[in-house]
Amino acid sequence: MEISEQVKEKKTEKPLRRMMITVAYDGTAYHGFQAQKSGAPTIAGVLNETLTAVFKEPIEVSGGSRTDAGVHSLGNPAVFDTHACIEADKLPYALNRALPDDIRVVKGEEVPADYDPRRSGRGKTYEYRIYNAEIQYPQKCHYAYFSYSSYDIDKMRAAAEVLKGEHDFSSFCSAGAQVLTKVRTIYDISVSEENDSRFPGRDIVIRVSGNGFLYNMVRIIAGTLMEAGKGKYTAQDIKEMLEACDRNAAGPTAPPEGLTLIGYF
Amino acid sequence: MEISEQVKEKKTEKPLRRMMITVAYDGTAYHGFQAQKSGAPTIAGVLNETLTAVFKEPIEVSGGSRTDAGVHSLGNPAVFDTHACIEADKLPYALNRALPDDIRVVKGEEVPADYDPRRSGRGKTYEYRIYNAEIQYPQKCHYAYFSYSSYDIDKMRAAAEVLKGEHDFSSFCSAGAQVLTKVRTIYDISVSEENDSRFPGRDIVIRVSGNGFLYNMVRIIAGTLMEAGKGKYTAQDIKEMLEACDRNAAGPTAPPEGLTLIGYF
Repeated sequence: MEISEQVKEKKTEKPLRRMMITVAYDGTAYHGFQAQKSGAPTIAGVLNETLTAVFKEPIEVSGGSRTDAGVHSLGNPAVFDTHACIEADKLPYALNRALPDDIRVVKGEEVPADYDPRRSGRGKTYEYRIYNAEIQYPQKCHYAYFSYSSYDIDKMRAAAEVLKGEHDFSSFCSAGAQVLTKVRTIYDISVSEENDSRFPGRDIVIRVSGNGFLYNMVRIIAGTLMEAGKGKYTAQDIKEMLEACDRNAAGPTAPPEGLTLIGYF
Repeated sequence: MEISEQVKEKKTEKPLRRMMITVAYDGTAYHGFQAQKSGAPTIAGVLNETLTAVFKEPIEVSGGSRTDAGVHSLGNPAVFDTHACIEADKLPYALNRALPDDIRVVKGEEVPADYDPRRSGRGKTYEYRIYNAEIQYPQKCHYAYFSYSSYDIDKMRAAAEVLKGEHDFSSFCSAGAQVLTKVRTIYDISVSEENDSRFPGRDIVIRVSGNGFLYNMVRIIAGTLMEAGKGKYTAQDIKEMLEACDRNAAGPTAPPEGLTLIGYF
């Protein structure tokens, strides 16, 4: 937990309770989830400001996933401590009035005082969406990466299959990550096609569930599977990428706008 | 046609050809399709500026539908005359590079010199979308009107059924419309429910096709059907609304963000 000592030591007679909010956001306008000293707009920064104003006491949230700049969420859990007398299930209504349109609290619950969503052991699901058509539509640009390339979905599926299970994902991790181990487990990964009769073309949706994800891991997986779909990599190549434990062995990092944290399970 | 004389009389040896572009846009940031003397941003205003710059000759577009402020389009046809030597099917690629992200040309074709999409006799289809759930999601706010009310879809369908066919739609037309007749034909109108497993709740989608629509007609139909879905109006009430030929007889005008011009057929 990164809730600072100053915030912890709020003096009041009301009991300090830990609340967990589930946060949905459009990441387009933000420099990621995590608050930054530079003052750049972040999801946590806006939440801290809003909660502090609403509860009239200093609040600092600690988020489950530190999503990158431009990445979206339908369900990122964040905890904070408060003395406020509010029922947890009323949190969405109390906070959404004060939050900007691109951030919404979709659930509120009370959790044990030591509950930390980063150490909860819960798995999470991400989705990477590609709008695959000849011409971009404005309505498609918010939550999908646009590509007019040809993709063979079966080749993407065969490549994805190799990533299932427990592996050292060093090849699928951008530099700068400070973690003890790069071993993670992917419980499930699927590549599916979705059609919306209003739009030409199709959405290609990569959905991946795991016990944890390294820095840029889902975007590198997406970038690599897209190259596999173009015929650049085979399933055997993906196997060798994993074995190489070297970021240079895998494909490019796909752009952030296609990525959404679906939620925790 | 409202292409001005000045634009028509461009002197050059190349032949003047009439092009039709199909335009998709996110109307959020615009004061409607039609160019305004006030200089407020409009879809036509941006198209005129962009086409004039790209073709290096004064261009004025004439649109099929004068969509309102905040209303979206997947396929609004617009014609313009040009001396430029460009193949019509290359228009999307030539223009999209110069257009902002929220406007896209999705099709280009050459049409007869007197072709006017407003007098083409083609029908068109609109969609009004309601995101019906307990809590709004940022990802849903762009192209749907949010409502947490309870709607009985069968009641909405029964009410919609009454509107099918040829009627005087005076009760479903906002003041300010200058038209010879308010008789229009609705070929089809449907109310359906769409579910997206990523989001709680449902989308309620009203889709209406007709030979023409009066000022705010689809939004007044949507507002009225929503009230019918809440139990305020029966099918018999809708029948009486049509007979009244009075805007005050029908329900409220639904907000613009839920409305999308799907296209012409």
